[in-house]
Amino acid sequence: MSSTSTTAQDKRLRDWAYLSKVAEAPCAPLAELVTELGPEDAAHVVRERALPPALAKPTASRRHLDTAEADLDLVQSLGGRLVTPDDDDWPAWRMLSFQSAAASGVRDAVAPLALWVLGGASVQELTHRAVAMVGTRAASGYGEHVTAEFTHDLAADGWTIVSGAAYGIDGAAHRAALAARGPTVAVLACGVDRCYPSGHGALLSQIARAGLVVSEYPPGTTPAKHRFLARNRLVAALSDAVVVVEAGWRSGARSTATWARNLGRPVMAVPGPVTALSSAGCHRMVRNQEATLVTSAAEIAEEAGRIGELAPASPMGLFELQPLDGLDLVSRQVHEALASAGGASERELAERSGLPVTQVRGALPMLEMEGLVRWEEDGWHRLRHRGRLR
Amino acid sequence: MSSTSTTAQDKRLRDWAYLSKVAEAPCAPLAELVTELGPEDAAHVVRERALPPALAKPTASRRHLDTAEADLDLVQSLGGRLVTPDDDDWPAWRMLSFQSAAASGVRDAVAPLALWVLGGASVQELTHRAVAMVGTRAASGYGEHVTAEFTHDLAADGWTIVSGAAYGIDGAAHRAALAARGPTVAVLACGVDRCYPSGHGALLSQIARAGLVVSEYPPGTTPAKHRFLARNRLVAALSDAVVVVEAGWRSGARSTATWARNLGRPVMAVPGPVTALSSAGCHRMVRNQEATLVTSAAEIAEEAGRIGELAPASPMGLFELQPLDGLDLVSRQVHEALASAGGASERELAERSGLPVTQVRGALPMLEMEGLVRWEEDGWHRLRHRGRLR
Repeated sequence: MSSTSTTAQDKRLRDWAYLSKVAEAPCAPLAELVTELGPEDAAHVVRERALPPALAKPTASRRHLDTAEADLDLVQSLGGRLVTPDDDDWPAWRMLSFQSAAASGVRDAVAPLALWVLGGASVQELTHRAVAMVGTRAASGYGEHVTAEFTHDLAADGWTIVSGAAYGIDGAAHRAALAARGPTVAVLACGVDRCYPSGHGALLSQIARAGLVVSEYPPGTTPAKHRFLARNRLVAALSDAVVVVEAGWRSGARSTATWARNLGRPVMAVPGPVTALSSAGCHRMVRNQEATLVTSAAEIAEEAGRIGELAPASPMGLFELQPLDGLDLVSRQVHEALASAGGASERELAERSGLPVTQVRGALPMLEMEGLVRWEEDGWHRLRHRGRLR
Repeated sequence: MSSTSTTAQDKRLRDWAYLSKVAEAPCAPLAELVTELGPEDAAHVVRERALPPALAKPTASRRHLDTAEADLDLVQSLGGRLVTPDDDDWPAWRMLSFQSAAASGVRDAVAPLALWVLGGASVQELTHRAVAMVGTRAASGYGEHVTAEFTHDLAADGWTIVSGAAYGIDGAAHRAALAARGPTVAVLACGVDRCYPSGHGALLSQIARAGLVVSEYPPGTTPAKHRFLARNRLVAALSDAVVVVEAGWRSGARSTATWARNLGRPVMAVPGPVTALSSAGCHRMVRNQEATLVTSAAEIAEEAGRIGELAPASPMGLFELQPLDGLDLVSRQVHEALASAGGASERELAERSGLPVTQVRGALPMLEMEGLVRWEEDGWHRLRHRGRLR
């Protein structure tokens, strides 16, 4: 299917592309609008209508700038594509944890609208069993060595290595994964057409050939500090666990670790000499019980394999067991749609969740039996603890 | 007072010396006999009487061998002395935790009968604020460096460094303490007249001049494997906290750490490169939550300063808050005397605790009000949890 054809599907893809650029990601009001209206109506509304302030401001500078077709063409010419929630390849279950985190009050806990992707591999398959290996740009020889060792063993064990393509630990992780012929995913804080950092051009090309280069930012987007922080949330979201190999006292890796905790992913840290500043952040995380100390790939695999046992974290970043384990996807979505205060009708829940009303109606009785929701005069309410109104 | 005078005090000191040799320490039945009868009658009974099997066996080979006077003379000629529970210098409060550990079922949780000591310093004063620095004999350059750094800073902060005078981490700790002109205590697994390990003769002489060389074994005792394990319990008992700087996967330092936990002392471990076998035991302890990860002397001092907040541990080695905090010494001793099953009379409690009956009678009402003991038909019972019979 050529990108110049005018099928409805193409139109819808262009709307996704338009939306992925019109506001700086992550943009919760835009994400909500898309959830509510779908991409076509959402794009139409943003383009044409007088918007409420929450949406007018973040879209003001770009709403009349529609480069969707050119962006799609450019990425296609690079051998890439735009993966949207319409695609079978959309990693939907990985994005679910954003809803729980947002419901717990975590700021910017917004799933990406879509993912710009270079590489022929499937996003879902490649992130099916994935560990993020992250750390300081100022890695020591020890840190790079340990990264390579652990990555090699994890890749041999079938784990995909996710990282941020930065210098230091990130680069060592991608290189070791490639050397082990294991799949690897680089999540960028700029457009996938951009080569950042500049010294990693060849590495990014190799990753795109053997794995995936991923970004929520449209082509042409330049890297910026806030984009690195936003990118870190996707590194965490696309992985089963995050391993910090080396991190200084104040390191960006800690932001990835915080996102992992907020999304319910185990966080691990590798110790090193106490005399090396490059391990200070790792030791700090272990001391603060923000991370589990790990010393081998086997320990990492064991911990990462536990993701199913862990539920989304509270806003304090502590793991807590949630009563949602065992619910099917639809029930979870309905439950999530009840996150906001006040009662909701089945119609409203269908709008909020994007599910057909029939599915919402089917899920509610089961949720009620589980003690997770309750019908009140003003509509359906979510119960924070079984049997207790939130 | 010369050691050849025949005062009652000298007689009693010789009895202590006799008892310290007559059974292999730690010997719980002997310790109980001494607590019950005092050293003079206990020594008399062991020398002259038909003993019950629990005491006959451990004293069989040595009960007719009385080298007390010669041992005392030898140690005095070396500038040393025998410190006994009769002395003001006896570190009584440090030994208390053995009673709690024994009550919790910890094996060999027996205070030493007496301490053979080289050096002019006061045992009580030197162990008033003390940290044990221990670790593998096969220390790395990193381990010795970190030991020296931390020891220097702790000594400058007024902490006494306790260790076992072994090669590796122990030796590095003693040397660094001496270099910082800080007090240091070496606890030996042999007689204080023995130079073990042989390469540490000069070091032991320096420690005796500047600090203390301590052993529960009489002069002439040779080092043996079981004595190292018994010695480790004294290293823990004489310290506020134990720091394991480097330890292999199976290291004697872990036995010291286990003793520290059983005696309610914080245990810390220093991380190192995961590529070094000499840190594997430390990482293991942190992973198993047997030790807190520490990276500086300041962190060690902070953790060691918390000893007052921690109560003796359960036999599982986990810290738990005990309801005894705030009790005076007499009340604790009466409470400890109730450790065994079955009811006890005030008379029996006096015998078990070594306290006058009047003091026992004074303490019981308070313990009862606190919900820690209860009067039943067959006597006083200890309650494991407030209000619940053990």
